[in-house]
Amino acid sequence: MTQPTRRQLANAIRFLAADAVETAKSGHPGMPMGMADIAEVLWNDYHRHNPNNPQWFNRDRFVLSNGHGSMLQYALLHLSGYDLPIEQLKAFRQLGSHTAGHPERHETPGVETTTGPLGQGFANAVGFALAEKLLAQRFNRPELEIVDHRTWVFMGDGCLMEGISHEAASLAGTWGLHKLVCFWDDNHISIDGNTEGWFTDNTPERFEAYGWNVVRGVDGHDPESIKAGIEAALSQDGKPTLICCRTTIGFGSPNKAGKESSHGAPLGKDELEATRKALDWNYGPFEIPEEIYAGWRAGGTGTLRQAEWEQQFDKYAAQYPAEAAELTRRSHGDLPADFAAKADAYIAQVAAEGQTIASRKASQLAIEAFAPLLPEIVGGSADLAHSNLTLWKGSTSVATDDANANYVYYGVREFGMTAIANGLALHGGFIPFDATFLVFSDYARNAVRMSALIPAHAIHVYTHDSIGLGEDGPTHQPVEHLASLRYIPNNDVWRPCDAVESAVSWKAAITRQDGPSCLVFSRQNLPHQPRDAEQIAQIERGGYVLADAAGTPDVILIATGSEVSLATEAKAQLDAAGLKTRVVSMPSTDVFLRQDAAYRESVLPNAVRKRVAIEAGITGFWRQFVGLDGAVIGIDTFGASAPADKLYQHFGITTAHVVEAAKAL
Amino acid sequence: MTQPTRRQLANAIRFLAADAVETAKSGHPGMPMGMADIAEVLWNDYHRHNPNNPQWFNRDRFVLSNGHGSMLQYALLHLSGYDLPIEQLKAFRQLGSHTAGHPERHETPGVETTTGPLGQGFANAVGFALAEKLLAQRFNRPELEIVDHRTWVFMGDGCLMEGISHEAASLAGTWGLHKLVCFWDDNHISIDGNTEGWFTDNTPERFEAYGWNVVRGVDGHDPESIKAGIEAALSQDGKPTLICCRTTIGFGSPNKAGKESSHGAPLGKDELEATRKALDWNYGPFEIPEEIYAGWRAGGTGTLRQAEWEQQFDKYAAQYPAEAAELTRRSHGDLPADFAAKADAYIAQVAAEGQTIASRKASQLAIEAFAPLLPEIVGGSADLAHSNLTLWKGSTSVATDDANANYVYYGVREFGMTAIANGLALHGGFIPFDATFLVFSDYARNAVRMSALIPAHAIHVYTHDSIGLGEDGPTHQPVEHLASLRYIPNNDVWRPCDAVESAVSWKAAITRQDGPSCLVFSRQNLPHQPRDAEQIAQIERGGYVLADAAGTPDVILIATGSEVSLATEAKAQLDAAGLKTRVVSMPSTDVFLRQDAAYRESVLPNAVRKRVAIEAGITGFWRQFVGLDGAVIGIDTFGASAPADKLYQHFGITTAHVVEAAKAL
Repeated sequence: MTQPTRRQLANAIRFLAADAVETAKSGHPGMPMGMADIAEVLWNDYHRHNPNNPQWFNRDRFVLSNGHGSMLQYALLHLSGYDLPIEQLKAFRQLGSHTAGHPERHETPGVETTTGPLGQGFANAVGFALAEKLLAQRFNRPELEIVDHRTWVFMGDGCLMEGISHEAASLAGTWGLHKLVCFWDDNHISIDGNTEGWFTDNTPERFEAYGWNVVRGVDGHDPESIKAGIEAALSQDGKPTLICCRTTIGFGSPNKAGKESSHGAPLGKDELEATRKALDWNYGPFEIPEEIYAGWRAGGTGTLRQAEWEQQFDKYAAQYPAEAAELTRRSHGDLPADFAAKADAYIAQVAAEGQTIASRKASQLAIEAFAPLLPEIVGGSADLAHSNLTLWKGSTSVATDDANANYVYYGVREFGMTAIANGLALHGGFIPFDATFLVFSDYARNAVRMSALIPAHAIHVYTHDSIGLGEDGPTHQPVEHLASLRYIPNNDVWRPCDAVESAVSWKAAITRQDGPSCLVFSRQNLPHQPRDAEQIAQIERGGYVLADAAGTPDVILIATGSEVSLATEAKAQLDAAGLKTRVVSMPSTDVFLRQDAAYRESVLPNAVRKRVAIEAGITGFWRQFVGLDGAVIGIDTFGASAPADKLYQHFGITTAHVVEAAKAL
Repeated sequence: MTQPTRRQLANAIRFLAADAVETAKSGHPGMPMGMADIAEVLWNDYHRHNPNNPQWFNRDRFVLSNGHGSMLQYALLHLSGYDLPIEQLKAFRQLGSHTAGHPERHETPGVETTTGPLGQGFANAVGFALAEKLLAQRFNRPELEIVDHRTWVFMGDGCLMEGISHEAASLAGTWGLHKLVCFWDDNHISIDGNTEGWFTDNTPERFEAYGWNVVRGVDGHDPESIKAGIEAALSQDGKPTLICCRTTIGFGSPNKAGKESSHGAPLGKDELEATRKALDWNYGPFEIPEEIYAGWRAGGTGTLRQAEWEQQFDKYAAQYPAEAAELTRRSHGDLPADFAAKADAYIAQVAAEGQTIASRKASQLAIEAFAPLLPEIVGGSADLAHSNLTLWKGSTSVATDDANANYVYYGVREFGMTAIANGLALHGGFIPFDATFLVFSDYARNAVRMSALIPAHAIHVYTHDSIGLGEDGPTHQPVEHLASLRYIPNNDVWRPCDAVESAVSWKAAITRQDGPSCLVFSRQNLPHQPRDAEQIAQIERGGYVLADAAGTPDVILIATGSEVSLATEAKAQLDAAGLKTRVVSMPSTDVFLRQDAAYRESVLPNAVRKRVAIEAGITGFWRQFVGLDGAVIGIDTFGASAPADKLYQHFGITTAHVVEAAKAL
């Protein structure tokens, strides 16, 4: 081999993928073999990245939405020169390797987002492309387009069947994200077989209906056809592009190409051998000739490309020093140096005001206070802006080309919203928040999970947090949602009891870099709780003593959100009855459980077992705090349609019930 | 007024809705006022139902997918003669009324499905239409089309923005459900305002891309235009129809029509008065003149219509007595009389065989055993048939016109699948099951919740139930899902430990009429656990003593699914170490917690506090069983990509760890 052909370059992907799957005894060879030619053209001729610095801010983003084809991405990263040596590919899907079964951002350099749950990578990519558009309109200057990159997406039939593809594609079309280019791996095969029985959409017409540019009829195994498709996308100026690539899954496998048998299982020793013969690939497993590496290596070009960009950025910094500093700060994910101090000052002010307001209103006031300090905030709601109270004075729709555009009217698209927000967070330069009713976190649930797993610094705002929502009834009343969201690992759920805790929860969510926060707010008014400065500081620890008795308490009442006031009212009655009563406010069980043992013991002494937890949600969750011998006041059935106060009475979430339960212990 | 005009008939809806919202001080007047003319034409000229018998099996189904417009449906039910007196409309959104904020099937006669969570009513309706198609091809005979009804759907922009509309519409198109007719309330307004900023889809083209018949340009306030649209739908023979109705939200309100201010709040006293004037409606709140009632009343026609159908059914029964009996049984939701006995015989056989197999395989064997007894079973999977093991010998795709079609290739559409399955269950004549990986229950989560709330007798099969899934890694490994699904009220979650418990869980799910069951199965093999006949019978109680010590136990090990074998192994070591150890298998905490106190005490004696729970999931959930002083062996982080046995070691879910924890208590 002297100068390898494009097909030979692509075959390197095919055999790295097929051999790694064979070695791991599990995985998906069919997709990498099917999309190898497209990947080769894209990565070698168009993709502007730097293998020597996966964090280069102006790189193109590449998203493998059909993440089961992870070996395609690992092969690309390895071949082009990322820090992913061949040993890693040999350890595909093994404990401790950086080559997980599906691409994981926190494991592998060059992986922009964790994919596998279908359709979400595509929606993340819409977030990437939106981030690029917003940063460009904020920071670019004539002849100094320092933010200027594309987002490339590979997606399969599965991604397109998922509902989230509808939500994300619709918004991408509305926003005219012309730097978003998606390659549809149109191979007619999904895991159950030929898709003709369950996927009969006219996908090109569907995407045109969303306002996309659609390039039909690309032969996904013909480099010239692929190049023509990409060129057609690059010439677009107002629309995202879908390039429809007709491919053969498992391309090259004599007996499994075009069949579902190549989708999710190793080819098998004999078939792999036959594939080597068919593709004239005379190298052993994981053996890549130097000429092939030479055809792929992109480190030098990448470093040069980044250097050119840095030169331009230096010019920009000279002309626009404030903007350059701001973009640098935001791209590093640093908060302004004075943010914590200003946030604390705001919290102190809220404490001093002592307003009785709904915590959703307190949330809006916190946004009003913090957003002017943080131009990286980009908020939004799934068509409930006036219920979630997510608009603020400085909010401007991202559908405009306003330099300060920072608010997303997501429409009624909770799942797409949340995955797009994840993309905004992962791109860098933004702290996104999204919002809906707490009960509709269900619609977005796996994207919330992905926020926590990736992890993404996203903030999920959920209002109308209990039966306190009232008349809309049980379809709209969360019951199990608080507990269920808390159980997502690495997800911090906050349910503040008043305006002060609401402000603190916003500060915590903004400050936390290594994962998402869910901020859960009430529809109804919540009374202010008085606290001293130490107590205010302790809110950030997730749980703290809000009101205490002298000496060791006889009984501890633990409550969150709207039920904290029931606890403090009950305390007055219990104290009067001679029971020394402590009230613990627990706005975030997740954060509290991360505190050191001594602090937890100081709040909930192990010896005090007379404990009552109060929360308008599932009771079982609270047994980890009150044990078998305590009591829980909550709700284990669906709610009902009635005014909130009637419902609290009906379901027995009352001060009287708390007092009774405490006395009965 | 002598003979009311169509507009006057429609205005009765408008004022019942607006006055009820005004009285309740909350609700959505805009949609009923906007869709009143469409509803009037549909219900008075086309909708074939019987207000005197909302359960008449061959009735047309009417689904209000934009359920926030509930007062439209209540007004229709009231005016046409259902058992929903005017007092109920006056008590809209009040505790104990049958007029909840959103339509609820279990509250209100004539409500076919509970709606409000947007898009799901539409998907339920696809399930209704599929049920009708399948029953028709199974039972109809030439000139005896005893199953022959339409499914009418009202849907708004919100439904169309939701991703589930994509999934459900795509399948309806693939299946050619031509008796499904949907009215799009194209009013350009959602809660956040004019939709031009966030909903720019070309919806007609989008639905044509799904293979739908689309009727464009209907004036939703012109009865002739509406009639023409419906006639165009009725003439269709191979496609579902979307009728695009241009409407004005809040039609009739001089100052709020066409504006979002009419969407989700009362019009207000003055505006309501102005609307009365504008529409020349000279009646007080809830006052409907007899002439208007006369124009609406449909009870007589309905009874006659049902009687005609019954005559035809009698002819059918005479010619096809077995089919008639079978359809009657299925339409009543009765199981065959001998089902329980046959199921028990199968369970005994499985116990005698004592196979070590994956519980997903045991599930498939149970389906093989039970499906031939139950032609009402209609199964399916979201493109994971060969992983979920949901195909059986008798399964035939519903995309065919085979009389025994009973298997749905749902494609990668978990949310749509689950909501369609809910519709199949609600229609009657079917017990549906759907399937995906446990982790992707997230994608369907609110539809699972709706199964439980409505309630629907649906069975949700979830395989690959833990880190035992192995190499696919954390995106595919459920951790919090078992706990989260158990917390949904009225949802029975089963996680069997072997083939015997798997068969029992299927029997329980099939037998349970008043809600859904989630059956959760392993990817990996699980060893058979020996039991006596009493223990086998006790499995149905959700938790039972699988292996005991003589006398009062020193320690109780509680486990589910794949972790039960760790518990029995640990018991052997603990017994040997002199600790009298009981093993409790707890396949369904939901069912166990419904048992009487004496039974629960017999399994988990309150006095025995040395307890260890073992489950490869979130530990906090198990504190309700082990208290503050017990131990839980589980996993509170995301998993990893590696072979299953390596992961169990890595995360410390091992027999050694159980023994150690028990000894340390």
